[in-house]
Amino acid sequence: MRCEIVAIGTELLLGQITDTNSSWIGEQLALAGIDSYFQVKVGDNLERMIDCIQHALARSDAVITCGGLGPTQDDITREALARIMGVGVERDAAIATRIRHMFESRGREMSANNLLQADVPIGATPMAQMPGTAPGLVCPLGDKVIYAVPGVPSEMREMMQGTILPDLKRRAGVNSVIRSRVLRTWGHSESGLAEILAERLRELDRSKRATLAFQASGIEGIKVRITAKADSDTAVMLIIDEEEQQVRELLSTYIFGTDEQTMESVVLECLRLKGLSIAVAETVTGGLISTRLSATKNAREVFRGSVIVNDPETQERVLGVAGAIPSLELTAALAQAVRREFGADVGIASTGIDTSMPSADLRPGTVFLALSLGDECVTERIRLPGDPERVREYSVISLLNFLRRRLNLETLPDRSPS
Amino acid sequence: MRCEIVAIGTELLLGQITDTNSSWIGEQLALAGIDSYFQVKVGDNLERMIDCIQHALARSDAVITCGGLGPTQDDITREALARIMGVGVERDAAIATRIRHMFESRGREMSANNLLQADVPIGATPMAQMPGTAPGLVCPLGDKVIYAVPGVPSEMREMMQGTILPDLKRRAGVNSVIRSRVLRTWGHSESGLAEILAERLRELDRSKRATLAFQASGIEGIKVRITAKADSDTAVMLIIDEEEQQVRELLSTYIFGTDEQTMESVVLECLRLKGLSIAVAETVTGGLISTRLSATKNAREVFRGSVIVNDPETQERVLGVAGAIPSLELTAALAQAVRREFGADVGIASTGIDTSMPSADLRPGTVFLALSLGDECVTERIRLPGDPERVREYSVISLLNFLRRRLNLETLPDRSPS
Repeated sequence: MRCEIVAIGTELLLGQITDTNSSWIGEQLALAGIDSYFQVKVGDNLERMIDCIQHALARSDAVITCGGLGPTQDDITREALARIMGVGVERDAAIATRIRHMFESRGREMSANNLLQADVPIGATPMAQMPGTAPGLVCPLGDKVIYAVPGVPSEMREMMQGTILPDLKRRAGVNSVIRSRVLRTWGHSESGLAEILAERLRELDRSKRATLAFQASGIEGIKVRITAKADSDTAVMLIIDEEEQQVRELLSTYIFGTDEQTMESVVLECLRLKGLSIAVAETVTGGLISTRLSATKNAREVFRGSVIVNDPETQERVLGVAGAIPSLELTAALAQAVRREFGADVGIASTGIDTSMPSADLRPGTVFLALSLGDECVTERIRLPGDPERVREYSVISLLNFLRRRLNLETLPDRSPS
Repeated sequence: MRCEIVAIGTELLLGQITDTNSSWIGEQLALAGIDSYFQVKVGDNLERMIDCIQHALARSDAVITCGGLGPTQDDITREALARIMGVGVERDAAIATRIRHMFESRGREMSANNLLQADVPIGATPMAQMPGTAPGLVCPLGDKVIYAVPGVPSEMREMMQGTILPDLKRRAGVNSVIRSRVLRTWGHSESGLAEILAERLRELDRSKRATLAFQASGIEGIKVRITAKADSDTAVMLIIDEEEQQVRELLSTYIFGTDEQTMESVVLECLRLKGLSIAVAETVTGGLISTRLSATKNAREVFRGSVIVNDPETQERVLGVAGAIPSLELTAALAQAVRREFGADVGIASTGIDTSMPSADLRPGTVFLALSLGDECVTERIRLPGDPERVREYSVISLLNFLRRRLNLETLPDRSPS
């Protein structure tokens, strides 16, 4: 079963909007075991749109068009579909009523052109899901099919999940279930991880029990995706659980989380479970650590706050720590000071050199990490590659990972006196 | 002149990477006056890649392929091009030497497969720009042409600017110059701006002297893009300058910058010119203001630092300001406290309520802004829509815009005593 995606909209071609819908749909199709070999963008031009969809239909079994179902004169996907099907359009009374109600319930005036969205090519079926005012359409053409969904991501997603994916799987005779889980790692290269997993990869290549794929994701680390296929949800989850355990034994502490977990969500949860609060002193990272922590759900339960200092005078004035040149000692002093200042259980800090502030002694990319907890203060010196922005971003994740590994390694007191 | 874009890579189809390259190329083509009616994604499969490029070539005058020029066995664009051109490949000695040197200069071992990147289809010309190890290729086919560039964005961009755009314009006989300038606005809706500019838009519709287009860009505000076409760079810049002045007179202080300027770069530059330093107290924004300021070039010249406090106890302990419920008074006290604490000329602060912290008295989205300077402290109360993330993001830009407008309005002292 091959399914092609046609994203519709001149603004996509002009680069005013990036087509993220096709990426998402492509991912969903892959997870459903359906091949997608081509994905096309075309503008709001009737002739070219018809050309594009027909070409897609010739080389695929199904086509998903995305966009051009709204009420304005640019929205001509309905017309293109009717032409391809060789039919006219008919106003669907039930949909027209729904559209009217939607406007009424939001207390908004409805202009007449909104009812154009209720025009359905004869032979097409509107999808049951209709979170907006534009219905999705299922247009059968012989043994092939065109699905048309709106370009609004939330509406498109609801229709994909509710109608298109189940229908495609039914058509493809896919009875098996494909699931995947992402193990998120930090601290080792892709080739390094592949080397550790080499034997496991060979074994899976033989047994076809599951697949492991790597995805380098910059400061989000390297993702290891386990994918498996089985007859039922229970069976497939069992395989994935077992495979996760195998991989965890091999990669151990490189793995910091799974799926949607982030380094900061993992660290904050770990602190919460241990009943520890935290404060942060930032220099070279300029607020990035605080921003990442703050954006995490329930961060306020453990994250007291931060100080960001950009020059030695301010640093001494605000935190009482003297010293202009980044070092292990200076960073330790900052971690201790911010912990004390904020009355937190844990204080963390990083200092460093990026290319925007050359130092006689230190090479750009040199970064120091420190963690203060109770009477203990641990530090680490690292070397990061790249421009100032990358140094900042990698410092953030390195400091959070440093904290994560210390929290997991140490037997920590339940709560140190603050 | 029609130019089609073919983005190459299975990871694009699977949604593991979003194809932002095509969007950027599409924008550049539009600015150069070259039509791009179709943009296609295809995987690392030789047959389908050839099919795709040939189909593109049949309906367009030029094709840009992006990706698949690296050294691994997935990288088969060179082979596809050679097949389409009906030629073999030949190793380019000069490029092979460059690749070897690149590895040597970085002190890295070069594996033999890296030299595959020096294989050039016979009749193709390598592009002069080669920032990475993969050369771009210009492949003539009769009166049409295929340009092949690597998928690494920075490399692709350099080749687009250096080779492809000039060559396309030459082929298209484009002697006229198209330029555009973006005026960046904050504080008014798209329809509101369109209403203010209505007469100007009608006038331009008649005269065809230039065009104005709106682009809503979330927390980056609404962009007003002026585009003009003329025989020379001088002539087109003159039109754009004149049009900018017209628009500025109408939109006045809604405009905060042009082109690549951001709200934070404008604010920091304004402070620098006035010789004023700044410190920030963040609550609801959790570090976002500091991060945006820090990421701006030369921020350290004026930005002393920040305090982020997440609970009333920490706030009182660190800044000496009591009070748990956001208000104009509390926010003013925070702005004054952080200014004093950091010894800065200006202190700014925001407090607010997002849906993650309900308050009996205040509706979510209520945000207070304050600016302390010398003896003066000004405040403002605003209402923001949306979820916690949007409240945070809109608070940031609102506070920076508040600062910008105050700095422009007031006759400020050269430097207040700190």
